[in-house]
Amino acid sequence: MKLARYGAPGQEKPGLIDGEGRLRDLSGVVPDLSGDVIGNEGLRRLAAIDPATLPLVAGTPRYGAPVAGIGKMICVGMNYADHAAETGAPVPEQPVLFMKATTAIGGPNDTVVIPLDSVKTDWEVELGVIIGEVTRHVPVEAALKHVAGYAVINDLSERAFQLEHGGQWVKGKSCDTFGPIGPWLVTRDEVADPQDLSLWLEVNGHRYQNGNTRTMVFGVAQLVSYISRYMTLMPGDVISTGTPAGVGLGLKPPTYLKPGDVIELGIEGLGRQRQDVVAYGDRNAW
Amino acid sequence: MKLARYGAPGQEKPGLIDGEGRLRDLSGVVPDLSGDVIGNEGLRRLAAIDPATLPLVAGTPRYGAPVAGIGKMICVGMNYADHAAETGAPVPEQPVLFMKATTAIGGPNDTVVIPLDSVKTDWEVELGVIIGEVTRHVPVEAALKHVAGYAVINDLSERAFQLEHGGQWVKGKSCDTFGPIGPWLVTRDEVADPQDLSLWLEVNGHRYQNGNTRTMVFGVAQLVSYISRYMTLMPGDVISTGTPAGVGLGLKPPTYLKPGDVIELGIEGLGRQRQDVVAYGDRNAW
Repeated sequence: MKLARYGAPGQEKPGLIDGEGRLRDLSGVVPDLSGDVIGNEGLRRLAAIDPATLPLVAGTPRYGAPVAGIGKMICVGMNYADHAAETGAPVPEQPVLFMKATTAIGGPNDTVVIPLDSVKTDWEVELGVIIGEVTRHVPVEAALKHVAGYAVINDLSERAFQLEHGGQWVKGKSCDTFGPIGPWLVTRDEVADPQDLSLWLEVNGHRYQNGNTRTMVFGVAQLVSYISRYMTLMPGDVISTGTPAGVGLGLKPPTYLKPGDVIELGIEGLGRQRQDVVAYGDRNAW
Repeated sequence: MKLARYGAPGQEKPGLIDGEGRLRDLSGVVPDLSGDVIGNEGLRRLAAIDPATLPLVAGTPRYGAPVAGIGKMICVGMNYADHAAETGAPVPEQPVLFMKATTAIGGPNDTVVIPLDSVKTDWEVELGVIIGEVTRHVPVEAALKHVAGYAVINDLSERAFQLEHGGQWVKGKSCDTFGPIGPWLVTRDEVADPQDLSLWLEVNGHRYQNGNTRTMVFGVAQLVSYISRYMTLMPGDVISTGTPAGVGLGLKPPTYLKPGDVIELGIEGLGRQRQDVVAYGDRNAW
């Protein structure tokens, strides 16, 4: 299934994409796509519905993040060897984890705002993993059963905030609009192999990132298992699994986003995002 | 006011401590002490209630964290010069920020569980700041108006997970039971000066930490202002402002928690906490 949330920010309704790619309304079935309805049992219930019985949604509404009430967003750093190399970091021996504030989360095509005082706002296409079950010390072999599905994420990053303002990376990852997720939560039964998905990102039509999840240092099952040793993952939590090479920081010379830029990105089978980049002061735009 | 939440985990009700120190039930007034009722306007409404009109709560219920639905918990590292010195770190030039997973949050007297495979579980008494208003780029002079109040926090930390497992500190801060908050949210009008509060922590009756918030490197107003430049603080978000000297990592030799230990800690005017420490496998105990 492809699940989505549509409507104005903060007022999204649950929806489902039918076999013809049309958005249908799920709000007669579940109040929202929150953690409590995307567990294995909840997804079975949704899968039993004949999409033709759901109302078609008219027009072209905005999409929100495809999960409501995300409790935490855990990001993995340096998880593609080529990206580690371009940033001058060694390939890690264990997954590098950091958090993105949940206030940064938004819809897949929402405007991206360059933060006030930013000089190095950068892009990162990533495979997002959405947790479906309470997950604590899960072995690698069982880890994917705890995954509800997958989504495209742009892990936007302010490199000066992240690397030059002292301390930990969270500062450069948590600005408002820095976490577009979606358009869909694609349930795990529709993703034959999460370690064989091509992913790409373009700015103003120029392709900067062109990778495949097969070159991840730590795969999805390993990551879910590993993270669950350090904290309990809850239904609706999101893991962003790292980015391949081609971010602005790694270019020679480094290249960062500016107002007027257009970011487009996508992952095979998971859909695509498109973001207009605006200045912080451009209040009309966000 | 001293606001509290009481009852079984996940089923807490809102309450208020009256002038005689007795717990009274607020659930006829507000459904819970979530971010939406602890803003400046919400607190004014609660302050207008005569506590004598509220039902007394019988017995000695468990206390939960005094805020419901905490969206993010932002911690400040190395924010007391003596603590930075004991851990061998320089005093930071800017606040060092990291996150604690909200799944770690619990009540002030809940059992603390040594994580599986832990070898270095440590304590940290900290002044907690609970945000009352949406806060984004707030100047230092206005920052305290965005604070609902204060609470005691034990920022439990697994030092091997934090410092020896690669990458960022969140790994060592986010285990279940690592975030006791409370017993109360003491509203800011009752805290004459957040930079003049003594704070202490004992393990098995031995006093290890004995500090005062006047020796913070960055004070509360500075921290709220600073953090709000990097992310939007929402009502109910919690900032843990760092710990003074005397943590287990800084002792010679380093000393860590073990099953059977009892942690007691408190902050002047904000109450005290008491935690029994148990082993991970001791499932009956938590």
